[in-house]
Amino acid sequence: MRWACLVGGTGSNLRALIDDSAPIKLVISHKAGVGALQIAHAAGIAQVVITARQYPTREHYDEALLRVLRDNGIEALVLAGFLRLLTDRVVDAYAGRAINVHPSLLPAFPGLHAVRQALEYGVRVTGVSVHLVDRGLDSGPIIFQEAVPIRPGDTDETLSTRIHEVEHRILPEAVRLLDSHRLDVSGRQVVIREA
Amino acid sequence: MRWACLVGGTGSNLRALIDDSAPIKLVISHKAGVGALQIAHAAGIAQVVITARQYPTREHYDEALLRVLRDNGIEALVLAGFLRLLTDRVVDAYAGRAINVHPSLLPAFPGLHAVRQALEYGVRVTGVSVHLVDRGLDSGPIIFQEAVPIRPGDTDETLSTRIHEVEHRILPEAVRLLDSHRLDVSGRQVVIREA
Repeated sequence: MRWACLVGGTGSNLRALIDDSAPIKLVISHKAGVGALQIAHAAGIAQVVITARQYPTREHYDEALLRVLRDNGIEALVLAGFLRLLTDRVVDAYAGRAINVHPSLLPAFPGLHAVRQALEYGVRVTGVSVHLVDRGLDSGPIIFQEAVPIRPGDTDETLSTRIHEVEHRILPEAVRLLDSHRLDVSGRQVVIREA
Repeated sequence: MRWACLVGGTGSNLRALIDDSAPIKLVISHKAGVGALQIAHAAGIAQVVITARQYPTREHYDEALLRVLRDNGIEALVLAGFLRLLTDRVVDAYAGRAINVHPSLLPAFPGLHAVRQALEYGVRVTGVSVHLVDRGLDSGPIIFQEAVPIRPGDTDETLSTRIHEVEHRILPEAVRLLDSHRLDVSGRQVVIREA
């Protein structure tokens, strides 16, 4: 399948995907000048920046996004640092073919600043979730989760570093499974088919 | 400290506490005839049954509970299978000296049937939380958490078995820490002091 990676930050997950030979044909950022765009450029992947200020509403934004995706024949999406909630129109267009990575063990700590949320709650274990995108906020069927224990004295930075290591390992694996049609989704349950 | 264990089920956590020589002086059940009462009896621990039908309201129930606790000089509580939400009066009387065990990685899946909730959500990792009791539902400061990965084909029963094994290990350890005044609580953060 032809994949687009939606980004907005440093692009460390994009780099992990590229290192894993994920079939990323297009990188779309909601922010100009971010590291993810440089990584895409260095890897020879087409880049598009669509900033919020270009569009009066989320619906207009997502219409433009959808046009770019279709013009490029994109069949599947991987969200990695794209800090915008997609409208139902985009979600529905890529239902079952859009993956998000989130730095917590969902359903705990959805939304922004999940690592900080976990530290403030005082949990002893957090982790990473890779899930299919549905219409809710970080609420779709879960493909992979991996626990990351919190250590005494952990800060947002030290904990984020260990969480990113897990992300870089399990996000490319999930993309590979979906790309090779090995994910069977039934309701909220995702079953991984043997190769 | 003199501890009471509040129960309502098979009593497997009570047994783990007794095996760990926890200073349980009293077992209170909200249900008659449960396994936990037999375990208490066999261990020579005093038992009291207080059923909901004896009292018109939760406030009346908890008044009776508090009277029993005070009459027995109870200084700390451990909730293990006690399926009733305590009123603020009891919670406040034992603030910082009441421990609950919950079969999920809180804040995910609070309340009843946490194992079933996790299976229905489709998470890949759940676990056990041991926490101080506050006025909310399974919302108090966390002492220990341990992850339990979900395996393909897991049922409520197979998963509960692995979760109970973790509970039986970490609940007695938490009781021992609180009993020896080694838990420093600051807001939501629980720091374990070295012995």
